[in-house]
Amino acid sequence: MTNTATELELQQAIQQLTERMNVLEQSAGNNRLSIGVLSGNLDTTIAAFIIALGAVAYDMEVDMFFTFWAIAALRDPKKSPPKKFMDRMFGWMLPHGSPALPLSKMQMAGIGPKMIRSVMKNRGVKSLEQLMKEAAEFGVRIHVCEMSMGVMGMKEEEMIDYPGIDYVGVGSFIQMIGESKQVLFL
Amino acid sequence: MTNTATELELQQAIQQLTERMNVLEQSAGNNRLSIGVLSGNLDTTIAAFIIALGAVAYDMEVDMFFTFWAIAALRDPKKSPPKKFMDRMFGWMLPHGSPALPLSKMQMAGIGPKMIRSVMKNRGVKSLEQLMKEAAEFGVRIHVCEMSMGVMGMKEEEMIDYPGIDYVGVGSFIQMIGESKQVLFL
Amino acid sequence: MTNTATELELQQAIQQLTERMNVLEQSAGNNRLSIGVLSGNLDTTIAAFIIALGAVAYDMEVDMFFTFWAIAALRDPKKSPPKKFMDRMFGWMLPHGSPALPLSKMQMAGIGPKMIRSVMKNRGVKSLEQLMKEAAEFGVRIHVCEMSMGVMGMKEEEMIDYPGIDYVGVGSFIQMIGESKQVLFL
Repeated sequence: MTNTATELELQQAIQQLTERMNVLEQSAGNNRLSIGVLSGNLDTTIAAFIIALGAVAYDMEVDMFFTFWAIAALRDPKKSPPKKFMDRMFGWMLPHGSPALPLSKMQMAGIGPKMIRSVMKNRGVKSLEQLMKEAAEFGVRIHVCEMSMGVMGMKEEEMIDYPGIDYVGVGSFIQMIGESKQVLFL
Repeated sequence: MTNTATELELQQAIQQLTERMNVLEQSAGNNRLSIGVLSGNLDTTIAAFIIALGAVAYDMEVDMFFTFWAIAALRDPKKSPPKKFMDRMFGWMLPHGSPALPLSKMQMAGIGPKMIRSVMKNRGVKSLEQLMKEAAEFGVRIHVCEMSMGVMGMKEEEMIDYPGIDYVGVGSFIQMIGESKQVLFL
Repeated sequence: MTNTATELELQQAIQQLTERMNVLEQSAGNNRLSIGVLSGNLDTTIAAFIIALGAVAYDMEVDMFFTFWAIAALRDPKKSPPKKFMDRMFGWMLPHGSPALPLSKMQMAGIGPKMIRSVMKNRGVKSLEQLMKEAAEFGVRIHVCEMSMGVMGMKEEEMIDYPGIDYVGVGSFIQMIGESKQVLFL
């Protein structure tokens, strides 16, 4: 560009800048948060939902991607669809839904989670089950890793009734994080 | 825009682009890193501080958000404010400060952490306590999850003297990550 | 800027915007993902490689940074370079490569990992070793934390032959995440 640029040239330069700006703004994903949940402990699952609800309160859209052990938190203890032997064995070893999640520390043969739950209740902190209910109400999206479901022999029929819950591949997670401002992995 | 745009129109287009650019640059948070710390192990806590100090060395601002088990690393073993029964019990079960943190693997009834600390010393790697001291000197900000403090019955009076340490809600963490280039969660 | 701005002034404004745009686009790192791997479990390591390969399939560049326990996954069980006593002891306690990685849950004295591997094979999911081979083929970059290597007494000579594998400091990780769209830490 020389300093004798015509108005037409200036206009074209502005148009190019505008297009680049559109791309950047889209990819910045400033109002979207993705949370990958893998570990499947009571503490990390509570943390994931508290952060999700916190983000929603700040007008962010939130996508949670449940994989591996974390999926057990989404089992509905009241549902038990028929399964083949190996799947039944796996299902029997994994926690039957959120009420049965272990702690990552101080498990103490099941006393730890009861203690934490009791203290949280006394302090007026919502239970994991209440947090999950609120997440549903406030539109937090839950996606479940299809492959992990298969590996652990879990069936969609034994999962909780969560609005819009879907079963997706890792590609969906990649797309999610590509469109997000941040991604957390717990 | 037609190719007979006037200078005034061009000027307005530029002004709009500039405003969008300002917003994007702000939200890009290119010189800020947030680190969420939850697991409360010696290894993850060391990793968190090494990354924090590495980022500071690259002129980034660093905010650490301590939640759940990780908070025990910030207890001062020399302080023991009076507590109610349940809080005292919790406090007794959780590590009394950074020197008592367990490893996530190879804990071996306390031999593992001693081994790692001894090897790190022999190799000239700074101890966790030295890293924390440097973090304070280099302006790494430490924020503690208020709710977790309550659940575990911890008091501000038993925490280490860290410059500017504050006790905040999850909303602060959401704001932090919104203004950061990246967020890590350990 | 007044509404009598000359063409020269407009041109300068556009030039400034273009420069700011260049900086932003570079730092957005929209086609790059960094994955920090610390925990060294079979499940998290598999997750890390599946995500890495998923990202590559979406045309992202992927950098993996192995630190602490995770490094054991990169040991070649067939290599055993001479070591000093303490290093040999550490090396003996840490898993001898990916086939020996434990699970973060349901370890059951080694039965858990065998079960998961067997189920994954039956379901047609690639093994960790196949995923690592594919990661090499598709250009996923692997960086190993130098300091952790030292602490655990590991030698470059006992690591797997992975194209371009390098041994770097935390500064490299900071640079990586600064140039990435997202960073995951498992």
